[in-house]
Amino acid sequence: MRTRAPSKRATVRSRPERAAYDSETIDAILDRGLICHVGFVIDSQPFVIPTIYARCNRKVVIHGSPGSRMLRAAKAGAPLCVTVTLYDGLVLARSAFKHSINYRSVVILGAASEITDESQKLTALEALVEHVMPGRWKEIRRPSAAELKATTILAVPVEEASAKIRCGPPMDKDEDYQLDVWAGEIPLQTVASAPRPDPRLPSDIPLPVHIETFLNANRKRIGVWA
Amino acid sequence: MRTRAPSKRATVRSRPERAAYDSETIDAILDRGLICHVGFVIDSQPFVIPTIYARCNRKVVIHGSPGSRMLRAAKAGAPLCVTVTLYDGLVLARSAFKHSINYRSVVILGAASEITDESQKLTALEALVEHVMPGRWKEIRRPSAAELKATTILAVPVEEASAKIRCGPPMDKDEDYQLDVWAGEIPLQTVASAPRPDPRLPSDIPLPVHIETFLNANRKRIGVWA
Repeated sequence: MRTRAPSKRATVRSRPERAAYDSETIDAILDRGLICHVGFVIDSQPFVIPTIYARCNRKVVIHGSPGSRMLRAAKAGAPLCVTVTLYDGLVLARSAFKHSINYRSVVILGAASEITDESQKLTALEALVEHVMPGRWKEIRRPSAAELKATTILAVPVEEASAKIRCGPPMDKDEDYQLDVWAGEIPLQTVASAPRPDPRLPSDIPLPVHIETFLNANRKRIGVWA
Repeated sequence: MRTRAPSKRATVRSRPERAAYDSETIDAILDRGLICHVGFVIDSQPFVIPTIYARCNRKVVIHGSPGSRMLRAAKAGAPLCVTVTLYDGLVLARSAFKHSINYRSVVILGAASEITDESQKLTALEALVEHVMPGRWKEIRRPSAAELKATTILAVPVEEASAKIRCGPPMDKDEDYQLDVWAGEIPLQTVASAPRPDPRLPSDIPLPVHIETFLNANRKRIGVWA
């Protein structure tokens, strides 16, 4: 288990006690997130763009149109930063200063390599669809040769990576615990609500099992349902 | 109302039909988000770090420890990118290719200026607390002079900014509408669940009205509650 930062620049500086560098912690956050924010630089200007991703073993794959500024820069070997953030709660302290957020985040530094082999591209696209909705890949129309060609897929190694986690109640200053102020955590979760069928969906096509399973898992996780 | 991009580099290139540049659209997204992702560059390497923000008129304020790498770089005038992303739903199409996410995002390019005046710093901190939990500022212990000194606050103008929005059902290819595949949207929302009082909170301090109001608004928005 890796307990130290993989590089100097990947070392968490602010509040290092919240940092973790082992792949178990990092992978758990990557597998739980929905989108990442990809940072890249063009003419000294950073850009931060949200996009879907999936973890494939020790890599994160992202995809998009070949014309995308982000993918063009990344394909050319530009240094990237891929960040995934889950926010778990509002931390309400007795003082303004000690207010915080409970979160889990992963920051990956590195460069991407393009996946060009057709069968590897299909594997990456399957991982992307399954990351969002497990069980869906086998039910849908797979990409055609033309669609595959119109999709750029990049892989970023999860090597120079760090995780950062804050959890638990506020940590107020000793003298503030006597204040008559409510303090605690308001948990936050991203939840799914009732599916909206496509207006053009024939009424005899039922909600498939993989979506029911997804919604049940969601329901169980949060304990509430619409 | 601004209908065109404020600069060439702030122009949305991929799927420009989803772009908006007017401040009404941009502000609504900024006011609805919880955290932003800030991109900055050190030695050609982009970094993307999640942090709390608040909109104050035509600026976004962020804050943190004076030692933070991000704030030190930003204070020195480094070009920044501040991105806020709300994800509203999974878009499940009949083909893998047309799967998507419903989202609203704002991308702001620019440089930050530091807020050093004490009363302006307090105003910015109030905006940050109220952004997360309206009504809380007046209930908590305000920052001391030492705490103010230990907080760097930066403002980034919301000028070179764009919004991007995808909503609605999947847009499948004509020939795919005949497929026997369920298609539609799974709405996603970030919701609060039951507050967890600080273990050190005296039992005679009740949940304050501002938190009840926050939870009620949340409840109404999503129509579910734990």
